Amino acid sequence: MITHLPLCSVPSPKTVLVVEGGDELATGFENSRVCFHVGDAVEFLRNVPEGTYDAIIVDSSDLVGPAQELVEKPFFDTLARALRPGSVLCNMEESMWLHTHLIDDMISICREIFKGSIHCAWASVPTYPSAVIGFLICSTEGPAVDFLNPINPIEKLEGAHQHKRELRYYNSEMHKATFSLPSFLKRELILLVDAYDTIEKEPVRIVDRRIVKRGSTSVTEVLVEWIDSFPEYATWEHLHLLQANFPHFHH
Amino acid sequence: MITHLPLCSVPSPKTVLVVEGGDELATGFENSRVCFHVGDAVEFLRNVPEGTYDAIIVDSSDLVGPAQELVEKPFFDTLARALRPGSVLCNMEESMWLHTHLIDDMISICREIFKGSIHCAWASVPTYPSAVIGFLICSTEGPAVDFLNPINPIEKLEGAHQHKRELRYYNSEMHKATFSLPSFLKRELILLVDAYDTIEKEPVRIVDRRIVKRGSTSVTEVLVEWIDSFPEYATWEHLHLLQANFPHFHH
Repeated sequence: MITHLPLCSVPSPKTVLVVEGGDELATGFENSRVCFHVGDAVEFLRNVPEGTYDAIIVDSSDLVGPAQELVEKPFFDTLARALRPGSVLCNMEESMWLHTHLIDDMISICREIFKGSIHCAWASVPTYPSAVIGFLICSTEGPAVDFLNPINPIEKLEGAHQHKRELRYYNSEMHKATFSLPSFLKRELILLVDAYDTIEKEPVRIVDRRIVKRGSTSVTEVLVEWIDSFPEYATWEHLHLLQANFPHFHH
Repeated sequence: MITHLPLCSVPSPKTVLVVEGGDELATGFENSRVCFHVGDAVEFLRNVPEGTYDAIIVDSSDLVGPAQELVEKPFFDTLARALRPGSVLCNMEESMWLHTHLIDDMISICREIFKGSIHCAWASVPTYPSAVIGFLICSTEGPAVDFLNPINPIEKLEGAHQHKRELRYYNSEMHKATFSLPSFLKRELILLVDAYDTIEKEPVRIVDRRIVKRGSTSVTEVLVEWIDSFPEYATWEHLHLLQANFPHFHH
């Protein structure tokens, strides 16, 4: 999930950095496209040229103690620097049931640094504390990333359904669902709500239309779904204003 | 969740039966609209007139042992008999991680009895075994119930945001997300997949259109979202066939 959320959300990700604690090192040894760097991630990233990566995945150890540095602002600055415009960071974020303050802090830092969009997500993992794991996913300034409607749906990827490559948890339905947050979390993550407001809106599609009478004239309104947003947040807009504001939007 | 999934899915539910183990009896004592029956649910339901309820919620105890009867066909027959056409049953369904065989059995039984639609859903509950709880939700034959797009979104319900009535987990986003299933579960629930196929399709809205050339003529095709289905399963249909098959559908 921590891999598919970002990699299905950017077009053609080629240069990807995974920062992790070492417990899953064995997985990629057989793959010639994988290059290992054993060392301090903070140090490594300092020497990476600006705009190197299409995606960075940070699957760190517990975020209290030795790995504390990985949730502080300087590290996120380094991550953002290493990412190209319109690319993504997916960061392990502990449990929504247990660590809302930590989540709040991380969002607060990322909001300052990442000028694209910011989302929280979660998945069920029975062996983790409180049996969930969270993800904080951000995009850098540049071409908008629509996290909720992944540009690379896994079902359309050649070979994804081959024997032994079949995924057990992830699919495009789960991708979208994973961004739905319980109400208690939404209320706590006030910073996140603010973050939504600052995102530049972009229409995705028109799902309904109506004629509204205003005295002797009538106006066409359209129900618009927006990029990186749930269908529930579709809004009624005047068609002529929509066309004026988004001249390149064809529906 | 076990309450909101069904009650937000049927228009104006008035007569609702909750079958449960007794551990939450205290909750409703203060409410004059609630009537308690302490006794055997199987016996009680036998004496209920046909078509009495708009919704039945079965929050039973562990489904192995004394409560075994509550997952067998005769009990589901009794439940279906007590429900009116186009109403819903929401049944506790244990854990998707631990009890897929039990879930499979329940679906198999409900598929024979409930001629509306059948869905599995799940929610995160840290204190339960494997920290999730499942729901099996079915509708009886009659007016179609669109479980994925609830007819009574909680956000539009007057008083739902009042102090002390604010919900902690449930919201319309979570309602929809809760029906997204991990791939391993989808593969196991072959019976559920079959069940989807037998459901009468009904168009909800058109989200895109295109002109397809066929030799010297051209045909208009529209991308149609269907009732009780995810947007991902929208299909391209010939506009004139859609209009012929669904003359009352206005888009």
